[in-house]
Amino acid sequence: MLHLKSPTDDSWLAQVDSNLEEVLIDHAHCEKKAAGTALNLIFHYVEDRELCQEMTEIVNEELEHFHMVLDLLERRGIRFRRLKPSQYGSRLHALVRKSEPERAVDRLLVAGLIEARSCERFQALAEHVSDPELATFYRSLFESEARHHATYTRLAKHFAAEDVVETRLAELYEAEAAIMAEREQFPRMHS
Amino acid sequence: MLHLKSPTDDSWLAQVDSNLEEVLIDHAHCEKKAAGTALNLIFHYVEDRELCQEMTEIVNEELEHFHMVLDLLERRGIRFRRLKPSQYGSRLHALVRKSEPERAVDRLLVAGLIEARSCERFQALAEHVSDPELATFYRSLFESEARHHATYTRLAKHFAAEDVVETRLAELYEAEAAIMAEREQFPRMHS
Ligand SMILES: [Fe+2]
Ligand SMILES: [Fe+2]
Ligand SMILES: [Fe+2]
Ligand SMILES: [Fe+2]
Repeated sequence: MLHLKSPTDDSWLAQVDSNLEEVLIDHAHCEKKAAGTALNLIFHYVEDRELCQEMTEIVNEELEHFHMVLDLLERRGIRFRRLKPSQYGSRLHALVRKSEPERAVDRLLVAGLIEARSCERFQALAEHVSDPELATFYRSLFESEARHHATYTRLAKHFAAEDVVETRLAELYEAEAAIMAEREQFPRMHS
Repeated sequence: MLHLKSPTDDSWLAQVDSNLEEVLIDHAHCEKKAAGTALNLIFHYVEDRELCQEMTEIVNEELEHFHMVLDLLERRGIRFRRLKPSQYGSRLHALVRKSEPERAVDRLLVAGLIEARSCERFQALAEHVSDPELATFYRSLFESEARHHATYTRLAKHFAAEDVVETRLAELYEAEAAIMAEREQFPRMHS
């Protein structure tokens, strides 16, 4: 289902091992941002009822994830705080074309790509981390992020023909891998 | 609990009677905007855990209300569409002070005032409309908007002392009544 062009490598996992607190804090911010993305899509495409329905479910789920991470931080005595975000999201959003309906297609596909990468990272983390609570936690998120990815990709087809969407998605997968290849300095969920 | 300075008058109810479809469509947009307001507050005051918890519940409830109105429109064969909003919300938001923590206090109190006015209007509508489905619907929303009003006002006290908040709230109640007194041309939930 996921066609990411570059699997998460061991150097990222090593970066997580040495900066777990920061990655957990960033993870909470990512869930919050995911809720924001879905609600923004309701605002922009409010006349598409199926989109509004699906985005509502995603907003609710992402906020639930947000609180799950906050609870985890609290149990571990990690103070939640603001954090400089990685450039990953803004670099992907910069690829969104400016005029409709291409804009809608790209916004949905980019949102879906971020879900796909999160999903892939949760799987990698679940297999990597030795802490059983964390492994279970990452595994529990995997399924919903995969579902979100599928929902976004499907909704993109409300705004363009299936083959047009698939072609654009393939381009964006390449772009995502290129962005990922330029590893960022700070340890983040999408660094 | 609500201390609105100007009760909804019969001329607004008459306006609703002659423009019910438009008011219902506007109502859906208002519920969507209410969800947006609550999520924005999470983004801005993310380190306040209680605020994040309460705002998450409000986001979920407002989106549920949004879909309830969309379902009602669908049952009545009314096409949901974009609509020029009333100036009420933007005129209230213009009263928000620019620097923190006053900004937080004002944003929460203004959000709470809009809930109070919605609540008052739902009650007026429930008593006024002859359509039993609509009367039941408006009555069902009354309780949650009243609760939202109380939540926003309580959270404002995270950012200033209780008496400071109460004084500011009294000022904003006056301002809200003045805004309401300048009746808007288009029939809206807050015209
Ligand atoms: Fe999530
Ligand atoms: Fe997700
Ligand atoms: Fe509501
Ligand atoms: Fe509300």
